[in-house]
Amino acid sequence: MVKKVNHIGIAVNSIEEAMKPYVEWLGLKVEDIEIVSDQKVRVAVIPVGDIRIELLETTDPDGPIGKFIASRGEGLHHLALQVDNIDSVLENLDKGGVPLIDKKSRMGAGNNKIAFLHPKGTRALIELTEPQ
Amino acid sequence: MVKKVNHIGIAVNSIEEAMKPYVEWLGLKVEDIEIVSDQKVRVAVIPVGDIRIELLETTDPDGPIGKFIASRGEGLHHLALQVDNIDSVLENLDKGGVPLIDKKSRMGAGNNKIAFLHPKGTRALIELTEPQ
Repeated sequence: MVKKVNHIGIAVNSIEEAMKPYVEWLGLKVEDIEIVSDQKVRVAVIPVGDIRIELLETTDPDGPIGKFIASRGEGLHHLALQVDNIDSVLENLDKGGVPLIDKKSRMGAGNNKIAFLHPKGTRALIELTEPQ
Repeated sequence: MVKKVNHIGIAVNSIEEAMKPYVEWLGLKVEDIEIVSDQKVRVAVIPVGDIRIELLETTDPDGPIGKFIASRGEGLHHLALQVDNIDSVLENLDKGGVPLIDKKSRMGAGNNKIAFLHPKGTRALIELTEPQ
């Protein structure tokens, strides 16, 4: 069901500040910076092989990344796993009693379908994503 | 310098409990469970493509995972990036003033050479690893 790790999201105060060590120290490149209005974030996309590190900066203190940083500080935020047919996967998980944040998929960064599982099940915030 | 994402470590109270959703809901398999005495953890290795999710359970409340869970609860703990020649990478990072937890590599899970960068630089706890 899970094809691969798609990306790892890191909550940061400033993507311009936070990207420096990845670029200057670790030799990685920022491929793109985009705004995902729905999630109130600016995202810096840093490819590592066929996986991406995403640096996430809130555009609104009340957005999910703003709240996360207010309570926990900067750090690893979520792990995104790539699946096929995300909507049927979510339906099956929901039927199986899996705690979900999103019962239906919505549009995320890069125009992918995404949905979050609740960390009380998986112990970490897991995003499912289906590239379009 | 960075070849690929090697693994993502998740701090959990019990690997037997935490592995259930990954195995039963997401169709993944636990390949191995091992003890890494040096880091005071039991590790459940869950391959996803050529990357691994590692569920980390402390064997000692005073170990790094025990302390992490006491202060932050279960959740994403570190991101491991694979490099060649880890010792020369560390030497260069140190010369460049990069904040390091480990200035020299040590043995980690799976008999790999590992070292941690300090999150005050990278904003997330990053492990460098060189498979042997």
